[in-house]
Amino acid sequence: MRKFVSDKSCRKLLHRSFQNLTQHLHLQHHHHQHKGPLSSVSQSRFLSSSYSSMAPIPSSNPSAPPVTLDNINPKVLKCEYAVRGEIVTLAQRLQQELQVKPGSLPFDEILYCNIGNPQSLGQQPITFFREVLALCDHPAILDKSETQGLFSADAIERAWQILDQIPGRATGAYSHSQGIKGLRDTIAAGIEARDGFPADPNDIFLTDGASPAVHMMMQLLIRSEKDGILCPIPQYPLYSASIDLHGGTLVPYYLNEATGWGLEVSSLKKQLEAAKSQGITVRALVVINPGNPTGQVLGEENQREIVEFCRKEGLVLLADEVYQENVYVPEKTFHSFKKVSRSMGYGEADICLVSFQSVSKGYYGECGKRGGYMEISGFSPEVREQIYKVSSVNLCSNISGQILASLVMSPPKVGDESYDSYCGEKEGILSSLARRAKTLEDALNKLEGVSCNKAEGAMYLFPRIELPQKAIKAAEAVNSAPDAFYCRRLLNETGIVVVPGSGFGQVPGTWHFRCTILPQEDKIPAVVSRLTDFHKLFMDEFRD
Amino acid sequence: MRKFVSDKSCRKLLHRSFQNLTQHLHLQHHHHQHKGPLSSVSQSRFLSSSYSSMAPIPSSNPSAPPVTLDNINPKVLKCEYAVRGEIVTLAQRLQQELQVKPGSLPFDEILYCNIGNPQSLGQQPITFFREVLALCDHPAILDKSETQGLFSADAIERAWQILDQIPGRATGAYSHSQGIKGLRDTIAAGIEARDGFPADPNDIFLTDGASPAVHMMMQLLIRSEKDGILCPIPQYPLYSASIDLHGGTLVPYYLNEATGWGLEVSSLKKQLEAAKSQGITVRALVVINPGNPTGQVLGEENQREIVEFCRKEGLVLLADEVYQENVYVPEKTFHSFKKVSRSMGYGEADICLVSFQSVSKGYYGECGKRGGYMEISGFSPEVREQIYKVSSVNLCSNISGQILASLVMSPPKVGDESYDSYCGEKEGILSSLARRAKTLEDALNKLEGVSCNKAEGAMYLFPRIELPQKAIKAAEAVNSAPDAFYCRRLLNETGIVVVPGSGFGQVPGTWHFRCTILPQEDKIPAVVSRLTDFHKLFMDEFRD
Repeated sequence: MRKFVSDKSCRKLLHRSFQNLTQHLHLQHHHHQHKGPLSSVSQSRFLSSSYSSMAPIPSSNPSAPPVTLDNINPKVLKCEYAVRGEIVTLAQRLQQELQVKPGSLPFDEILYCNIGNPQSLGQQPITFFREVLALCDHPAILDKSETQGLFSADAIERAWQILDQIPGRATGAYSHSQGIKGLRDTIAAGIEARDGFPADPNDIFLTDGASPAVHMMMQLLIRSEKDGILCPIPQYPLYSASIDLHGGTLVPYYLNEATGWGLEVSSLKKQLEAAKSQGITVRALVVINPGNPTGQVLGEENQREIVEFCRKEGLVLLADEVYQENVYVPEKTFHSFKKVSRSMGYGEADICLVSFQSVSKGYYGECGKRGGYMEISGFSPEVREQIYKVSSVNLCSNISGQILASLVMSPPKVGDESYDSYCGEKEGILSSLARRAKTLEDALNKLEGVSCNKAEGAMYLFPRIELPQKAIKAAEAVNSAPDAFYCRRLLNETGIVVVPGSGFGQVPGTWHFRCTILPQEDKIPAVVSRLTDFHKLFMDEFRD
Repeated sequence: MRKFVSDKSCRKLLHRSFQNLTQHLHLQHHHHQHKGPLSSVSQSRFLSSSYSSMAPIPSSNPSAPPVTLDNINPKVLKCEYAVRGEIVTLAQRLQQELQVKPGSLPFDEILYCNIGNPQSLGQQPITFFREVLALCDHPAILDKSETQGLFSADAIERAWQILDQIPGRATGAYSHSQGIKGLRDTIAAGIEARDGFPADPNDIFLTDGASPAVHMMMQLLIRSEKDGILCPIPQYPLYSASIDLHGGTLVPYYLNEATGWGLEVSSLKKQLEAAKSQGITVRALVVINPGNPTGQVLGEENQREIVEFCRKEGLVLLADEVYQENVYVPEKTFHSFKKVSRSMGYGEADICLVSFQSVSKGYYGECGKRGGYMEISGFSPEVREQIYKVSSVNLCSNISGQILASLVMSPPKVGDESYDSYCGEKEGILSSLARRAKTLEDALNKLEGVSCNKAEGAMYLFPRIELPQKAIKAAEAVNSAPDAFYCRRLLNETGIVVVPGSGFGQVPGTWHFRCTILPQEDKIPAVVSRLTDFHKLFMDEFRD
């Protein structure tokens, strides 16, 4: 039998980790510590043999399932995520029905307008990006002669550059927890070029899409239900879901539909005060710009007011800027909140700022790659270390997503072989999105009782429907929110999938739905005519 | 100005989501609801203009940083993750020093033995897997003639098969939240082939590596610090970190070093009872097999006892089976806990079981791809729906990782063009790992005061060091755990990075470190000689 070191000075030095492991629980083990650690081990062995010969333990009932809705984490139970909720489950069921019994439904395909997932509806990826990804996945072909014929010269060159930034060129290795340093350098340079202000690669945390970055910040900031996060209403339900999962309180502020979903600092101020008077400590303000689900693009003056508000109130500004490339109207331009705050003269010491970016949106729409980053600024070294620690528990984000995030922040440049085709693909997608947005917006505004704001940016329309009382009563009768009732009917009769406004939040007593602008252009006439016909029949059926 | 629907029956129907959003907070808004929702919006506008002309808000101090260690989530503060902790930070600093001033340190390279990251140390990826990934990333080349010369025929065929399983062949789209159905079919078939028992694709949740799957289960099961999770000590610190982040209590059970890190059910039973007597509800048992950091492979009879224990006690069995391909000794075989429980006659109704698998380990070692899955069984449809909901909040895991997870569960078969090269690569890696494990184990056992158990599986050795009192006192003097003191000295003098045992937990008064078996074979002699020389000098310096 081995000897164990067990004198007193040694036991005093028990490492903090171990103390953490056991501090909640005074184990029997410790009561026996004066006999030396082996005593408990020997005792275990004794219990082992007696246990084997014991009758089934009567203390619990093996027939009762150990996990039920009554004993799971209530935060999980509470959380909702409408974008993949009830209506989508119904859509999946109808799609299966169409496959099994074609012709059994009043439509021949499901048109998914529920989620910002462009490539699922036929949008093609940017060729240059995919070339680089393929070459980084299989670098063995980089110096083969056939590769020259299959891939553009600048994609081959870029793949070499990227591989040289990865220690050992190992695209199959875990990276630094914040992401590969060379890729963060590229992203920082892209941010600098975009904003005209310096960006530090050490401020970049690469993540599997923007969602994990949002969760990370919520996890950092929320201590209990007494901590609040100011969120727009309507909002992208990732925020409400994440706040619920982390046990905080969503403090809503209403975007003003009458001014094109304007963000009014007075509303922020009012809700902040209301929250404070309820004993809520508001930690952060979420701003989604361009807006999801509302599609508005904030003006620079408005952004300055928001920065000023956060600075004065000591709030972290969580800026969801994933739609930064999706602006469709000439009178609006995307400005990052970092650029705005720096242009006001505010630096690291003045404001805590987090900008979320993703490869899933923009003209690239690479949702399946799960790439993205957050750029943090204004946090102390100690707090940054905590953010680093949390990101290190999951080791790192996927390397293809990291590479893609660097590519979208540093696409081909004038003179590169791919430049013209890249520009053609990009402009083709963005101009088509702008046309689709306009067509759908116009069609929606023609419907009885429907008003739809201008889609300035992002990928969504969020029309308001004035539903007749009879429809509201019919919804009530089946225990449904009126907008969900409308959306379910729309799906069942046309195959069009949209998300009820109640999934995003809306001013009480108003009803909306979110509809993406993503069906391919040749499908748009069908969307418009099915939606128009359905709406007319629906209103005829329920008109008061 | 638009009209808002605001009558009573309508307000009664406020959708549950919205109620969730505001239930914590009685907003001023609601007090004014009798005036109709617009009233508050108008009021906001009024407040807006008055706010703009206001003096700086005196209520908070803009110079105090809003986020400090004192006001972040204490769960984050508490969580530790030694695999990327203090020693690794020191290693990164030394590596930079070597780059800036070559020759300034007593070694010329850092040898990372701290983390299971094989490709970072030169392990080459399996060619077939990378071919398929590259083709799925850039399907446009699939029918080009040059592609035939660059890729094996079965890789091309497999890429087509996979693309046909993806709706619209869109590898850039979000998938089903559990992962692409066709890939889950493949994985389920792979599990069936491995176990000889049925597997259901609806039980598979594809994830970005195993870590997010572990977090998801902890999030589901942990309600408060009164919920406990039985974890082995020593353990992989993902578990302690995840339990800390979700606010639960880690209930440790000690693996018995004297029996080759044996898992004794008596110890489980004892710790379960101790936890119960402290008012802790134990929800689940974590078993890591093959073991991390201990490298032991459980015997089937032992696994049966564990299954029986979980069934009787109503515990969820969380089986970390990511090292299922890493078994190095002929007398041991990997058996999944699902296979073991099914072979005992236990089905869905008898036991809740979760098996975690990853593409990061095995012979593939594709850490950077962040692929993995969990297979769940024994959960009710209602609880499964909650798991689905949580996974849907992050939309889906990355598609390349999903594809790779399907490939590792369905590699080339006899007759496929790649079969021979695949087998050669696989056997080359596994047999080399076995040799490296043996060499390092033997070398460690030759050191004064060091004893190291057999590396039956996984990628680690976890030797125990009997440190002289003088070393323990020297560590105490610099406020360090003795094993961390040893590891820091080792790094500073040899460039070898290992993780102190205190990061994994160990019997109080014993000291260990975890060392991977992953340096390439040509580096192993250097690791052995540097370690041996260092240890001798260390012992000479501190011998009592």
